[in-house]
Amino acid sequence: MPSPRFAMITEADARTLPIGCTIELEKGGHVTPLARDTLRERRITVVPAGSVDPALPADLAPVSPIRRLAIGSDHTGLAHKAAIVAHLRQGGVSVDDLGTDSTDAVDYPDIAARVGRAVVRGEADAGIVIDGAGLGSAIAANKLRGIRAAMCATVTLARYAREHNGANVLTLGSTLMDPAAAIEIVDAWRSASTTEARYLRRLVKVRRLEDAF
Amino acid sequence: MPSPRFAMITEADARTLPIGCTIELEKGGHVTPLARDTLRERRITVVPAGSVDPALPADLAPVSPIRRLAIGSDHTGLAHKAAIVAHLRQGGVSVDDLGTDSTDAVDYPDIAARVGRAVVRGEADAGIVIDGAGLGSAIAANKLRGIRAAMCATVTLARYAREHNGANVLTLGSTLMDPAAAIEIVDAWRSASTTEARYLRRLVKVRRLEDAF
Repeated sequence: MPSPRFAMITEADARTLPIGCTIELEKGGHVTPLARDTLRERRITVVPAGSVDPALPADLAPVSPIRRLAIGSDHTGLAHKAAIVAHLRQGGVSVDDLGTDSTDAVDYPDIAARVGRAVVRGEADAGIVIDGAGLGSAIAANKLRGIRAAMCATVTLARYAREHNGANVLTLGSTLMDPAAAIEIVDAWRSASTTEARYLRRLVKVRRLEDAF
Repeated sequence: MPSPRFAMITEADARTLPIGCTIELEKGGHVTPLARDTLRERRITVVPAGSVDPALPADLAPVSPIRRLAIGSDHTGLAHKAAIVAHLRQGGVSVDDLGTDSTDAVDYPDIAARVGRAVVRGEADAGIVIDGAGLGSAIAANKLRGIRAAMCATVTLARYAREHNGANVLTLGSTLMDPAAAIEIVDAWRSASTTEARYLRRLVKVRRLEDAF
């Protein structure tokens, strides 16, 4: 189904569009300030006219903005997890903390699978997994159908992972950064979205690899 | 099957052990210089006594050292690929260059799948995939059963990816580093191996996620 296309988006439009949908705004088009707030609240994505390919599945792009998030860490990431949970909840995100809660050693594949499954089941819009370097958790989470997990050690990579690669799981290395730096990476990742048709077309190809698994 | 355990490994031992096997060396044990060369040549891994868990599948650890390697890049990684191929061939590694060969845009999932499949089929011991940031290729390659792909932007992460996470595919970001830096990362990754039982046990859990895919 082609996306609705607008030259002007008013508060009334924003109220009546389906929650979570994507709409196109014509070049030089206008969104009223009140409509902008409502669009945000109702999770409606506005993209430039012509950038939506109606042939692409509607559920390819990760849910944006992230309202409900699942988080998990191994025993090395407790401080990072606590800081990120507090930050996100303060920002109005509903966070499901899936452990671990103690310094006893746990295995990254268990934590990554727990977070990934919450996203796959739709219990969370996206997930964060922390282990020593974040690499193992990314490998493990990607072994779940529907998960696109990226280990990001910088703000730039985090934004890129979501804009280009539709990353619905972010993995972090507790040994690579302090909690404050981790929070900056989380914010860069969650404030980006996947809207460009050329990037979405590549996500179709990733899905085909899953179908052939 | 428990690994053979030695107090002393001679050239004669090294010649008769199965190619690619792992053996244990007792504490204070000795490997003769000639045996060392032969072990390397015959891809036999020597680990400290007690570090092999006989309950673990023998094919969990990535093939080490890497003798045959498959490489691919998107249109952004041509210079990096050419430099890595030349470096590896000079070092005696048999390299299969799976493209791309032109600056026409190609999609990272296609290249990652091509390299990953060569590793899965045993045509290569390991693989390297290059795209703009390396993140998309890691997601895509991990969608293949048996592939553990890690995007590594530093030498430390590259060694870690192989020692801890058994990464049999390395992905690199062409926009993150120049070809010389990429070569250093490749060398750190390929000279490391996965031998510790605690890390291998976690790879069993990754495999279980693949079995449940």
